[in-house]
Amino acid sequence: MTGERDLTRRLQRWFPAPKDAVVAIGDDAAICKNRGRDSVLCVDPIVEGEHYESGEDLFFVGQKAVNRNLSDLAAMGAAPDYLLVSLLLPRTLAESRLHRLLLGIRAAARRGKCFVVGGDVSATRGPLVATVTAVGHVLDRALLRSGARVGDAIHVTGALGGSIAGRHLHFRPALIEGAWLGRRSTPCTSCMDISDGLLLDLATLLEASGGLGAEIDAAAVPVSTAAKRLAKGDREAALLRALGDGEDHELLFTVARGKALPTGGPLTNRARRPIGRIVRQPGLWICKGDTRVPIAPRGHQHAIGLG
Amino acid sequence: MTGERDLTRRLQRWFPAPKDAVVAIGDDAAICKNRGRDSVLCVDPIVEGEHYESGEDLFFVGQKAVNRNLSDLAAMGAAPDYLLVSLLLPRTLAESRLHRLLLGIRAAARRGKCFVVGGDVSATRGPLVATVTAVGHVLDRALLRSGARVGDAIHVTGALGGSIAGRHLHFRPALIEGAWLGRRSTPCTSCMDISDGLLLDLATLLEASGGLGAEIDAAAVPVSTAAKRLAKGDREAALLRALGDGEDHELLFTVARGKALPTGGPLTNRARRPIGRIVRQPGLWICKGDTRVPIAPRGHQHAIGLG
Repeated sequence: MTGERDLTRRLQRWFPAPKDAVVAIGDDAAICKNRGRDSVLCVDPIVEGEHYESGEDLFFVGQKAVNRNLSDLAAMGAAPDYLLVSLLLPRTLAESRLHRLLLGIRAAARRGKCFVVGGDVSATRGPLVATVTAVGHVLDRALLRSGARVGDAIHVTGALGGSIAGRHLHFRPALIEGAWLGRRSTPCTSCMDISDGLLLDLATLLEASGGLGAEIDAAAVPVSTAAKRLAKGDREAALLRALGDGEDHELLFTVARGKALPTGGPLTNRARRPIGRIVRQPGLWICKGDTRVPIAPRGHQHAIGLG
Repeated sequence: MTGERDLTRRLQRWFPAPKDAVVAIGDDAAICKNRGRDSVLCVDPIVEGEHYESGEDLFFVGQKAVNRNLSDLAAMGAAPDYLLVSLLLPRTLAESRLHRLLLGIRAAARRGKCFVVGGDVSATRGPLVATVTAVGHVLDRALLRSGARVGDAIHVTGALGGSIAGRHLHFRPALIEGAWLGRRSTPCTSCMDISDGLLLDLATLLEASGGLGAEIDAAAVPVSTAAKRLAKGDREAALLRALGDGEDHELLFTVARGKALPTGGPLTNRARRPIGRIVRQPGLWICKGDTRVPIAPRGHQHAIGLG
């Protein structure tokens, strides 16, 4: 089997978008015209042993199953309305653990102000799988991956790296930030959720935007305390974690060349400072002082296992 | 872990419907008000070793993954618009088998006149899982499980039983029949997809309709040739298969007392003949000649394995 990213690309070729789809496979979520209002649709599974360790408190697993999808909607400038939950439960699953899973799903849905309206439960001989589908609507304008232009500034909403230390289960989807970036009054040109790692997701965004490149200022990349701790004081190792670890679920977004983000709003000062810029030449570069070194896009597909 | 049906009921209690949901967990699909038009949403997974044998041609598996959901929409009187496909693929899956899976998904989507607009592919150490979410719209009026009344006639759209012999992979979702039954001009009072077996699904429909009962005329139940073949000439055994085997994916529907279905339309003559009637006393009875014997609702959760 080829890599997961190749496969998702293949899905794109296999299933061409219908006429009334604004965006189909290939962005964080699909947008479909639905008589006057755009529906935003996405689906993401979470699998025992792939996306979380077997012993994990299932409250956080349920929460993550929902929040991964809400993060995808956030990246589109959309708000969630409904969730569908499909659970494959091992026959040996203890009642108390199932209870925690449902509690986590409900807590995340409430925090996201959306409702579980459909569900399906099946027993399985395999690992636990929770697949959540989220349906939402675009608030003002949709934020796509394909809108970045040469000269745009690159931003991220928060610190990156080391999500394996806990954040991959505990992150908060950036719904407020996404909604704000999607206002017509902001000069935000593109946006996506960081799930595979900054460099890998940036490469995806650059490809979607017509094959551009990007320069990242090493000193400007916000490195999480978890990444620093895991790197045991090695600053280079911590930076590499911030660039590639994945499952940060912060938003990666671009701001039109020469335009400033409006004052106010939910972004931190750090998120308002660019970490790099879009360039015409395809590729990725890390800038440190006066040097500019090419760097391969790399990242993880999951916090656990797939490497 | 308790049974799957109990769990789905529990989901219903755990996740109460939002105000703008016409129907949430507990029918074949959820119906949510979406500015002027009702969106119909459902999700169903298909798991290797649970819903199909490992050696099966994945074309039919992909087709079934889609068609199970289209059958749920059909039972609501809805037409499909969009599909989201989440695939968990074993790392050892051969390229040629993946190709067949995608071909099957695409063929079923085309036949259902709907589009795959979103997808996600992950590798897994467990069995292959294809989870399809379907989004559609109500064509004229929604067919619910809760509308059956005392004296209504009970019908099914086709022959039942023995789906394990092949039909569980090859059935055609009854979209045309569901759309026709959902017309305001028909006296159809309730409808659901037969997935767990006629008796078990009928019990669900009776419960949803306020705790009613039903009498089934043994001689009127359409028994499939597969059920007869599997029963090797034992007519009683064949009937029991028709009553309980499950995964028929025919529609079970009720017609208002004393009203006749309009002439024309897609129903076969067999589907126009009632197989029984709704009664006030909760319970299920089989009528043979002058005798009336209580029968326990029983059926399968899946064609394979769960028994």
